[in-house]
Formats: sequence, structure tokens, C-alpha cells
Amino acid sequence: MTNWTAIDETVKQWIQEAGALIRDSFYHSLSIQSKSNPNDLVTNMDKETERFFISNIRTYYPDHFIIGEEGQGDFVQTLDGVVWIIDPIDGTMNFVHQQRNFAISIGIYENGIGRLGYIYDVVNDELYYARKGEGAWMNDVPLKKLKPVPVEESIVGISSTWLVNNRHFDQNKLIALAKKVRGTRSYGSAALELAYVASGRLSAYITMRNAPWDFAGGKIIVEEAGGVVSRLDGTELNMLKINPVFACAPGLHGQILEEYLK
Amino acid sequence: MTNWTAIDETVKQWIQEAGALIRDSFYHSLSIQSKSNPNDLVTNMDKETERFFISNIRTYYPDHFIIGEEGQGDFVQTLDGVVWIIDPIDGTMNFVHQQRNFAISIGIYENGIGRLGYIYDVVNDELYYARKGEGAWMNDVPLKKLKPVPVEESIVGISSTWLVNNRHFDQNKLIALAKKVRGTRSYGSAALELAYVASGRLSAYITMRNAPWDFAGGKIIVEEAGGVVSRLDGTELNMLKINPVFACAPGLHGQILEEYLK
Repeated sequence: MTNWTAIDETVKQWIQEAGALIRDSFYHSLSIQSKSNPNDLVTNMDKETERFFISNIRTYYPDHFIIGEEGQGDFVQTLDGVVWIIDPIDGTMNFVHQQRNFAISIGIYENGIGRLGYIYDVVNDELYYARKGEGAWMNDVPLKKLKPVPVEESIVGISSTWLVNNRHFDQNKLIALAKKVRGTRSYGSAALELAYVASGRLSAYITMRNAPWDFAGGKIIVEEAGGVVSRLDGTELNMLKINPVFACAPGLHGQILEEYLK
Repeated sequence: MTNWTAIDETVKQWIQEAGALIRDSFYHSLSIQSKSNPNDLVTNMDKETERFFISNIRTYYPDHFIIGEEGQGDFVQTLDGVVWIIDPIDGTMNFVHQQRNFAISIGIYENGIGRLGYIYDVVNDELYYARKGEGAWMNDVPLKKLKPVPVEESIVGISSTWLVNNRHFDQNKLIALAKKVRGTRSYGSAALELAYVASGRLSAYITMRNAPWDFAGGKIIVEEAGGVVSRLDGTELNMLKINPVFACAPGLHGQILEEYLK
């Protein structure tokens, strides 16, 4: 049987080590490349941090599988067994331009069930994490169970990209929501925005296109904090594909689905 | 003659004291009221922090004038003499919901000329400040002089409010800009977004409606860092009225004005 307590302790140690390496990198120059398009940046630190985790996982857990944003993991086609889903630096554009507002994100799934989730806000040294069925924490302080929020008192994380003409979703539905809520925010890191939903700083987070490594850790943390994470039509996320993602406080999730997204 | 060095040292001390009081308040319950509309929140800490500054200014600089967001200052109709323009907590909604992403903002003007500017990110203990003609700093580290940025590599702070149908400005112009830039962000605090422009974390900040206390400190800091702060048509801000605000890296300011805002 998998010893999740031992894995949890090990991952936290690796995350601290990786975070220290990333913070050190601020004193060196970065090598920046673009990936699929000019705005999809990747740095040597993204790749090195992913390699750090993969090399550790292969050494200590050789029968586990790895999906990594930078493509250095396995070619994973099913969620059978234990699968680590890793984004070494979520919010690379922020990492490059701001040296803040980025995070390490890790979700560990067993036969498709999320067991352990981690989002590490490297610069603020804030580690959000959750263990399936046991709860969610930020730096060892338990996160308060999320409560329903009225839509007109909610703050929603949503990129303006989705509110201007986009080919993924009818923006008029999202505009109606944006006009109803107390405020919208956009931080440029899916993982951090999910951590903010889990900790109640945002009431909801909505995006049209997240890869599994963007939400794998956050999904577990939000759910353990009492929130709901689904696709924009309320169905389950596919952990092996790009998804629209709607993470939300309980109660509010159903209301926004029913009144704005359907 | 006004001793700006002495005032600078005094203000910094007051800001540290006020910041400590605000951080302490996280351990007590807040009293929250709404002002002009349900989303315009004010807390006892906004009022108490403003009172703290006003009481100090009246004691030490009895011939100075004060404009404060919470209305406890003077009824100021001209910028003659020395005028302090204060937002005790800029980003009150974030203060209430997130206990982060808010700032103390202070600008001190002499006969309309900005002399000293301060933005204090209370939770991160980051004080951005500037002295007219001498430069800008963050926690005693000089801010690098801002350089021109290509529009397609820029990150722009803009609330989604201005990208959906609004009665203040043709949103199609702003949408065209949002689609061209590398990314947009929205943090919900004008003062912090101006501090981010000054420190290069954002290339530009655009808003339709800022009061003088929202930008009085930031204007001086951005300008001393080499940036440009104007209205959306490129004209000067009116320090006694609500303004649309466009703060930007040099070079990029003219380009965005010419190609998107005119």
C-alpha cells in the first residue's frame, strides 16, 4: 500500500529545495525562450526545476508516472497507477517580468483520484497543500472550510482574455457575470488563483483553457477546503486534456452555473 | 523654505507605524460599511488610519493642507501651499477579502508640484517612494530607470470593467490593446498597480476613474522612475478631480496613445 504520509513529507522537502533554487536564480540572468507562441515563455528555471522533481521521483518512486509541463516526464495516456502532474513554474510570464506571482504546482493522483496537492508561492514562502480526506492547509495552518458567498459579494479571478471576443465561450455570459460580482481580478497564474479560491481570497476562478498541470494540485486543495472544481458546464475535469476550469466556493458554484454559464 | 528631507523621514516613520496598526487589525474583527455603492467599502481601519495621519500632520505641519479619501481632511479647492493627498487604505476590497494587495498611498504637493510620493504595500512590507528630482526607491533600493517596451511584450494592468461595455471610454480601443499586449493583469489597487509600473512589473496601468488619492503618490514615483503619467488623451491629470489615468513606461506611452487610445 502506498505510504502517503511519507510521500507528503518528501514532496514538501523537495518543494522547499526547489523554491530555494528558484529564489537564488533571481541573482543570475535567465535564459528565456518562447514555446508555442511568443507569449508562451519558458526559462531555464522551468526546465531545471522540472528536472529536479523528475530525477527525485525516478530515484525514490521508480514505479510512479510523471506528467510535466515542460515535457520531460513520461508519455502518459491513462491515470492508472500513481501519476504526478507537475508545473515547475506556473505563471512563467510573471516569473520573468515580476519575480513574483508564480508558483510550483504538484498534484499526485492514484488511479485517477487526487491524493496530494501542493501549490507553493515561492516568493511569499506560502505552501498551500491538501491530503485527500484530511483537509487543506497553508503553511501548517488549516484553511477554513469555504462557505457559500452571494454572487454580488464575490470576487472572481478571470482573465480579460475571456471577456473580450473569444472563440472558446460566449463572452456575453461571462460579461453578465463580471458586471454582477463585487469585483474581478487577474493574477496570471492559474495555480495561485486556485490557491486563492481555496483560501477564500477569491470566491471563484474561471478560465477557458487550463492544462492538467495548471489545475492538478489546485483541484485537490480547493476540494479539500470545501470548494467545487469542474468544467464550465459543471462536468468533471479530464486530467489528461486541456479543460475550461471553474473553481468556486460551495453554493455559489451551482448558482453561477445555473444563472450565468448554462 | 520647506525642509523636504525632514518631512520625508517623518512620513516614513508614520507609514511604518500605520502599517503596524493595520497588520495588528488582522487579529481583530473589522467593521465594514459601504459608501457610495455596495462595492465601495470602508472599514474602521480606513478611517482610523486616515485620522492617524491627519492628527500627526496637524500637529507637526499645521500650515499644510490635507485631502483624504475618507473625508476627514480639509475642504481643498486649490493646490496652493503644501497639500497632502492621502489614501489610508487603497484597495479596501482586497483588505477586507484578502488581507493583502492593498497599500497606504501618500503624495505631497507644493503649489501643484509633486515633491514626495509613497506607496506602502503593508503586508509585504515594501515601501515604494520618490523624491522629486532625486529618484525613486523600494525599501532603500533605487528603482531601475524604466526603459521603452515593445507593445507586444508589455503587461498591462487594467480592470476587466473597462473592457466590457462602459460609459467612460470606447471599449473597442481598449480591447484592441488587450489583444495586442503580452498579458493583462488586475490587482484591485490603483496604488499598487502604479508601484508595479514604477518597478517594471507592469509596463502600463490604465483606468477610467481614479480619484486624486488613488494616484497622488504613484504619479510622483512612476515619474521619478522614468515613466509617464497622464490622462487617457495624454493631457495632464487634474489633482483635484476624478481622472482617467494612463501610467506607462517611456516610449510605450506615446505608442499606445497614438495607436490605441486616440
